[in-house]
Amino acid sequence: MSLNTRIQNAIRDIPNFPKEGIIFKDITPILSDPELCDAIVDGFIERMGDLKVDAIACVEARGFFFGPLIAQRLKIPFVPIRKAGKLPYETISHQYDLEYGSATIEMHNDSIKEGASIIIHDDLLATGGTAAAAAALIEKLNGKVVGFSFLVDLTFLKGGEKLKDYSDNIVSLIEY
Amino acid sequence: MSLNTRIQNAIRDIPNFPKEGIIFKDITPILSDPELCDAIVDGFIERMGDLKVDAIACVEARGFFFGPLIAQRLKIPFVPIRKAGKLPYETISHQYDLEYGSATIEMHNDSIKEGASIIIHDDLLATGGTAAAAAALIEKLNGKVVGFSFLVDLTFLKGGEKLKDYSDNIVSLIEY
Repeated sequence: MSLNTRIQNAIRDIPNFPKEGIIFKDITPILSDPELCDAIVDGFIERMGDLKVDAIACVEARGFFFGPLIAQRLKIPFVPIRKAGKLPYETISHQYDLEYGSATIEMHNDSIKEGASIIIHDDLLATGGTAAAAAALIEKLNGKVVGFSFLVDLTFLKGGEKLKDYSDNIVSLIEY
Repeated sequence: MSLNTRIQNAIRDIPNFPKEGIIFKDITPILSDPELCDAIVDGFIERMGDLKVDAIACVEARGFFFGPLIAQRLKIPFVPIRKAGKLPYETISHQYDLEYGSATIEMHNDSIKEGASIIIHDDLLATGGTAAAAAALIEKLNGKVVGFSFLVDLTFLKGGEKLKDYSDNIVSLIEY
């Protein structure tokens, strides 16, 4: 069975979560299958090709499921991007619009080296707001966004278009 | 240099976070050092000895830094324990007291098998409230708590005493 099919079989559709009308892609059943998790990390590494990456920046909290595994495999730093107020040291922050209201994410201001090549990772690409905000943070710290990696890309929401200004290198393992 | 010293050198003390009077142990600098992360996973595995573990249940969000790596190394499921409202499928929840107010954590109700031997993981053991709540969740799902694993144990807060009812097997890599 292809990796694509194995992932699709494991993902669970949850209607009306987190709100009415949204079909949420629940990836947690994947985490119960260590062989599949291993194959997913292989898949990410393979699709990233020979891209030179100095660190992987991962968005709280679902980006932390595979982020540490990818970082470990590539032997590069794992950089957490968290919601406002969660990181204890000096931070930089970026606020971005949601459908209703706004959200703010933060990074420690010493978490990447100047000029470092960074890949941004999250579990799922929807409208791209969070990933674009993460990319803005990386650039504020003078890092270079060399790509994005997602387990799932909801292509019909065209999130990739919002990310083009930062990098057009978008790796995803499955698309809807 | 011993693993203990390497970890202590990497941890950063942050005074008055998250509130006045608390010295917060910031473990994020460790994540910038992939070799140290690898040695930490080795350290956890070594200290767990020949304990039979069916799955590792990890507490959001800092428990997700090393939890996936330990799960992957042991080739066992990674089970996320999250704050209320974050898990999309059917959940069970447990509310516990904080110094001021209370908190609720949740697990998917199909996330462990009945009778499974579970180790609970988080970055740091303080008063033990969250870890005890995690253990209560495991027992609600008829799992068996066979141990706890923490990067840091603030032994002066005696969190271990709160966990004894569930398991007296507490693995920690460094203690203060």
